[in-house]
Amino acid sequence: MIVVLERETDAVRAAGISAELASAGVATTPGTEAGGRAVLVSEREVSADQSTWIRGLPGVAEVTVTPGKYRLTSRVFRPTTTTVEVGAGVVIGGPGFVVAAGPCAVESAGQLDSVARAVADGGAAVLRGGAFKPRSSPYSFQGLEEHGLRLLEEQRDRTGLPVVTEVLEPAWIERVAKSADILQIGARNMQNYPLLREAGRSGLPVLLKRGLSATVEEWLLAAEYVLLEGNPNVILCERGIRSYEPSTRFTLDLSAIPVVKRVSHLPVIVDPSHSGGRADLVRPLALAAAAAGADGLLVDVHTDPTSARCDADQALTAPEFAELVEALERVLYAVDRPLTRPLWAPTAEAV
Amino acid sequence: MIVVLERETDAVRAAGISAELASAGVATTPGTEAGGRAVLVSEREVSADQSTWIRGLPGVAEVTVTPGKYRLTSRVFRPTTTTVEVGAGVVIGGPGFVVAAGPCAVESAGQLDSVARAVADGGAAVLRGGAFKPRSSPYSFQGLEEHGLRLLEEQRDRTGLPVVTEVLEPAWIERVAKSADILQIGARNMQNYPLLREAGRSGLPVLLKRGLSATVEEWLLAAEYVLLEGNPNVILCERGIRSYEPSTRFTLDLSAIPVVKRVSHLPVIVDPSHSGGRADLVRPLALAAAAAGADGLLVDVHTDPTSARCDADQALTAPEFAELVEALERVLYAVDRPLTRPLWAPTAEAV
Amino acid sequence: MIVVLERETDAVRAAGISAELASAGVATTPGTEAGGRAVLVSEREVSADQSTWIRGLPGVAEVTVTPGKYRLTSRVFRPTTTTVEVGAGVVIGGPGFVVAAGPCAVESAGQLDSVARAVADGGAAVLRGGAFKPRSSPYSFQGLEEHGLRLLEEQRDRTGLPVVTEVLEPAWIERVAKSADILQIGARNMQNYPLLREAGRSGLPVLLKRGLSATVEEWLLAAEYVLLEGNPNVILCERGIRSYEPSTRFTLDLSAIPVVKRVSHLPVIVDPSHSGGRADLVRPLALAAAAAGADGLLVDVHTDPTSARCDADQALTAPEFAELVEALERVLYAVDRPLTRPLWAPTAEAV
Amino acid sequence: MIVVLERETDAVRAAGISAELASAGVATTPGTEAGGRAVLVSEREVSADQSTWIRGLPGVAEVTVTPGKYRLTSRVFRPTTTTVEVGAGVVIGGPGFVVAAGPCAVESAGQLDSVARAVADGGAAVLRGGAFKPRSSPYSFQGLEEHGLRLLEEQRDRTGLPVVTEVLEPAWIERVAKSADILQIGARNMQNYPLLREAGRSGLPVLLKRGLSATVEEWLLAAEYVLLEGNPNVILCERGIRSYEPSTRFTLDLSAIPVVKRVSHLPVIVDPSHSGGRADLVRPLALAAAAAGADGLLVDVHTDPTSARCDADQALTAPEFAELVEALERVLYAVDRPLTRPLWAPTAEAV
Ligand SMILES: C=C(OP(=O)(O)O)C(=O)O
Ligand SMILES: C=C(OP(=O)(O)O)C(=O)O
Ligand SMILES: C=C(OP(=O)(O)O)C(=O)O
Ligand SMILES: C=C(OP(=O)(O)O)C(=O)O
Repeated sequence: MIVVLERETDAVRAAGISAELASAGVATTPGTEAGGRAVLVSEREVSADQSTWIRGLPGVAEVTVTPGKYRLTSRVFRPTTTTVEVGAGVVIGGPGFVVAAGPCAVESAGQLDSVARAVADGGAAVLRGGAFKPRSSPYSFQGLEEHGLRLLEEQRDRTGLPVVTEVLEPAWIERVAKSADILQIGARNMQNYPLLREAGRSGLPVLLKRGLSATVEEWLLAAEYVLLEGNPNVILCERGIRSYEPSTRFTLDLSAIPVVKRVSHLPVIVDPSHSGGRADLVRPLALAAAAAGADGLLVDVHTDPTSARCDADQALTAPEFAELVEALERVLYAVDRPLTRPLWAPTAEAV
Repeated sequence: MIVVLERETDAVRAAGISAELASAGVATTPGTEAGGRAVLVSEREVSADQSTWIRGLPGVAEVTVTPGKYRLTSRVFRPTTTTVEVGAGVVIGGPGFVVAAGPCAVESAGQLDSVARAVADGGAAVLRGGAFKPRSSPYSFQGLEEHGLRLLEEQRDRTGLPVVTEVLEPAWIERVAKSADILQIGARNMQNYPLLREAGRSGLPVLLKRGLSATVEEWLLAAEYVLLEGNPNVILCERGIRSYEPSTRFTLDLSAIPVVKRVSHLPVIVDPSHSGGRADLVRPLALAAAAAGADGLLVDVHTDPTSARCDADQALTAPEFAELVEALERVLYAVDRPLTRPLWAPTAEAV
Repeated sequence: MIVVLERETDAVRAAGISAELASAGVATTPGTEAGGRAVLVSEREVSADQSTWIRGLPGVAEVTVTPGKYRLTSRVFRPTTTTVEVGAGVVIGGPGFVVAAGPCAVESAGQLDSVARAVADGGAAVLRGGAFKPRSSPYSFQGLEEHGLRLLEEQRDRTGLPVVTEVLEPAWIERVAKSADILQIGARNMQNYPLLREAGRSGLPVLLKRGLSATVEEWLLAAEYVLLEGNPNVILCERGIRSYEPSTRFTLDLSAIPVVKRVSHLPVIVDPSHSGGRADLVRPLALAAAAAGADGLLVDVHTDPTSARCDADQALTAPEFAELVEALERVLYAVDRPLTRPLWAPTAEAV
Repeated sequence: MIVVLERETDAVRAAGISAELASAGVATTPGTEAGGRAVLVSEREVSADQSTWIRGLPGVAEVTVTPGKYRLTSRVFRPTTTTVEVGAGVVIGGPGFVVAAGPCAVESAGQLDSVARAVADGGAAVLRGGAFKPRSSPYSFQGLEEHGLRLLEEQRDRTGLPVVTEVLEPAWIERVAKSADILQIGARNMQNYPLLREAGRSGLPVLLKRGLSATVEEWLLAAEYVLLEGNPNVILCERGIRSYEPSTRFTLDLSAIPVVKRVSHLPVIVDPSHSGGRADLVRPLALAAAAAGADGLLVDVHTDPTSARCDADQALTAPEFAELVEALERVLYAVDRPLTRPLWAPTAEAV
């Protein structure tokens, strides 16, 4: 159950309501809903009688009962799909299908520059690139860190493309937010709750990857941590789950798209690159994602994949990316969705 | 390695070649390739020298070295995609995308009749329906068995639609083959080797479901049992694999389509019904399968799903099926594939 | 619900009761319980009222309501653990812990003879050995088949050890039963229902391996197929399940032992060889199985593992097996269970 | 490859060696080994020639080539099992088997006091209890946080038992270290690299839970992050992995114990409580863990499980815990390991 308080209800009154509910056996957690109003959320269900009584309490604006464990992420609480404006007029979750693309890791000024041009030219509306790379081994390339952030910032300024980049710990969110438009929370951190809360407090768009073996329920509950801080700007990203199948690094779970869309109002995009870990699978999986109803893609592109310092096997080349987007537009047409085009066209500019 | 023998090589000579190879340390298994010539297949690789030597042996037509564990199923052995003619001019694995649809289980003459009309009307080119149902519990409905076969036969005669139905044991193949055009081998029987061999011997089209937790490699090796008997008519069917995710019965592994197509020449279709176990997921998964490059679909349809005696939650109604096919045609157009239409149009006929 | 009929209730009366139940909305499946009495089993639950009414019907001896989907396998129906007498006085499921050991595959008279001596010497009370090997690839060694059966029979005669061997299809059960005391149904065939039914009809002890990705519930429902034919002699065998972990072939699920023992009366043994696929894991996993409450083990032993034609990496040598049994006896002592010793001591005999 | 530098090699010289290696194509990561010497670690292997050359460089003490991806965690680098002294003379990884027990979450002074007494009385040598609880839902009890730490500190002072408690973020390590002897890093944070590094820097014993779907390799690579900071005090804890089986919350992977022990020198304990999520499974799984070679256990105990605010279903009562330890001692005797007894005996004291 979610109790939304009236805008004018002050903190003291809110605490009073919470205490009243608690003494009636209904423990609640305080938070803020998308519109900025205070909420009190209970884990368990309440009886119809209790719900009527709560609705009548002074200071209470609305009471919503949501099924399952979902509360603020529930489509029952918020029936229309959330649209997340990520910068430069790009909106995820609206009619337009958004492709974010770029290198797995930012490696150098030259590399990022060439890839950024290529993806903008190819049809990406958002630039991706990791400055902090969470790697299984401490001996693998860990990203350019702060220097990588500066390079992303430069490209954003030059290209106008909004930037998405991963953040690994709460202490870095403020700094990352200066260089990026979307905070990416990686699969390995999906249940890093201090990070989720802090990303919630930032108010910034958050791209929340599904955990390596997270259920859809756990994934939405992770999003719930962000929303509870008053930040509705969550974009979910399916990126493959652990299974026994060895021919792909992970198993892309496209069923998760319609499953999420049925229970939640959050937009969902798909990462066909990290999922399979194979460049040759990116195109069929990307098209399948669009057909299954995804709101966008996150794609690894590199102008020289063989030299990539991270996940070299999965990066598309610039021409492969351009062909993918062409094929994608045909499928999007079949499902009545336009592709959101980048504002900037580097090739045109060069002319 | 696959050694194809010349057509005129007789059994005695073949045995001699096999013995020669064995004494050189190359154990082989005898079989028959698609074109009807005898083959000797080895599990391990041979050296380049050995391969040259074998090529020179009298009676040997060709020697092909295939990577991995794949032999007759390998695209290296047979570079063009296999096309399986399943009856009434319907071909799976060719340019046309083929939808097989019908009830999970044949329940009665009336039920099968109404569903057969509905699916033919909706655009299915093959009729599915289980007469023998492999059920986890012995107390669940096990199918109408022989009576179910007779009902399928009647519908085939009336509608002209080729029929696919499951066979559970070698002893029944001959009988099932009288009533059906395609032998379905279910997920639970993917590693039932006597059944695979016998299906191979029948020469009939075999729809081979992926095992509940089979790797792609195991699945193709299962197909290898059928092919080795000289029967090239295998259609693979991805139907979801076991994972930890509880919101769907199985996790549809669409990556398997491009993975299989890269290593093998066999056609692959997708069952979006048994995969999710949920009617609301059938359409998005079906469209995704088409976009990912599948050669067809196997869809559960029921004119009265709530009364279905088997897997009621996953059946589409007749109108839902018709809408699915409409949406599917748009996606197929985007990927340049025509839908194979049924020869028979019951509604038109009724007029 | 299980309705046990009185011994004197004839087939006509039984059919009448079944019809009466059906017309009251309670569909049932006929079968035979362990004691030989006819039963009618329903999949769904019945109301308390219905249950009282059924209890009163002439010809009905007992009505038992069992929780979940379990019926004849349920500990509620049969509270004491089933003991399976497998030959030569060896009982599985009683106080004694039974070790079955031998080669993965029977390879030759000499191999089987040396391994049989070694395992009897080491403390095995049952001889295992596959004559029919279900192999992922048709090019792998498939077993000596009928010749393998004859070799097993010879060893049984010579050593007095009861023999367990796998059977792959219904048509072979009668022949296998001549040479073996326990029919092994392999992981790949756990849901091969015609095979389960036929094994049920044989009345012989059945060793039922857990399917590669079977839930405990599906495993017990598979056993239910055997029990329903009036054959209570089912021994379950946990042999590892599919998971994402690559360092072992399968993941041994020892939790399944206490889970099964809580809901069912069937004995459970463990195969630590096929589970890990690694000889170095057999001992720790075998001891763990004993500590967790297993009723026995199934262990691969080979006197020359490097030459083994099947699963060479997992076979213990004769001395390793003897050491395992020594260590095992200490753990068994800790959990108050004696080891069932073989009747025959080949070394002693040789003296 | 691990290059250990001589103790007297200063930072400038170390940087020089690293640069020399890099220019020879061997990229390395700097760190500190257990003994406090600087190391340079490379991800890839080096040739025998290179290794000889590196060994001869001034300032280099040793060069070790380790198989696979393991470096500082490899048993090849450090052949003897690591012993972690966790306080009050308790050592994990030595001959003694150590039981850590206590409530899942610290709930109140009274609760912690009664549970601490019970577990010390029952035979636990370490007290567990979560002050910060990582919960799937933000609406579940999140722990008493700082207040919980104070209560743990009080119990440590009173009972002399070393304390293990979870830490969720780098910023809290210093504070947690004041109240606890062992930093627990939870399954959800196994790949939270900033947290691992900071725990490494603290030099404190770190209990590293296996990630929900981590492979053994990923788990050891996570430990590598801690070791690289010069902190050798890592205790691994197997706590069940994600699988498809629904009868237990996770699937305890006991094979991981011998697998880890073969490749690594780190001690491994087992959490039979979080694994199954069921109190009735704790005892069989705990005994199995001891038989399989674990170095200790982490067990949830509550004096009133039904009132527990976290994971109530899995907590043992005080008497159940005492019985478990009794049974455990018998199994430990069978595998020649003594139980490490707590120094403090509250009941005796009370007398
Ligand atoms: C590391 C990444 O992805 P994931 O967190 O999904 O592994 C990434 O997108 O750069
Ligand atoms: C039982 C069926 O499917 P599967 O073998 O894939 O479970 C079916 O298609 O009827
Ligand atoms: C093949 C065997 O086992 P499983 O069926 O468990 O793979 C066997 O025990 O020989
Ligand atoms: C939360 C805990 O465990 P895990 O991290 O293994 O889930 C715990 O031990 O309190």
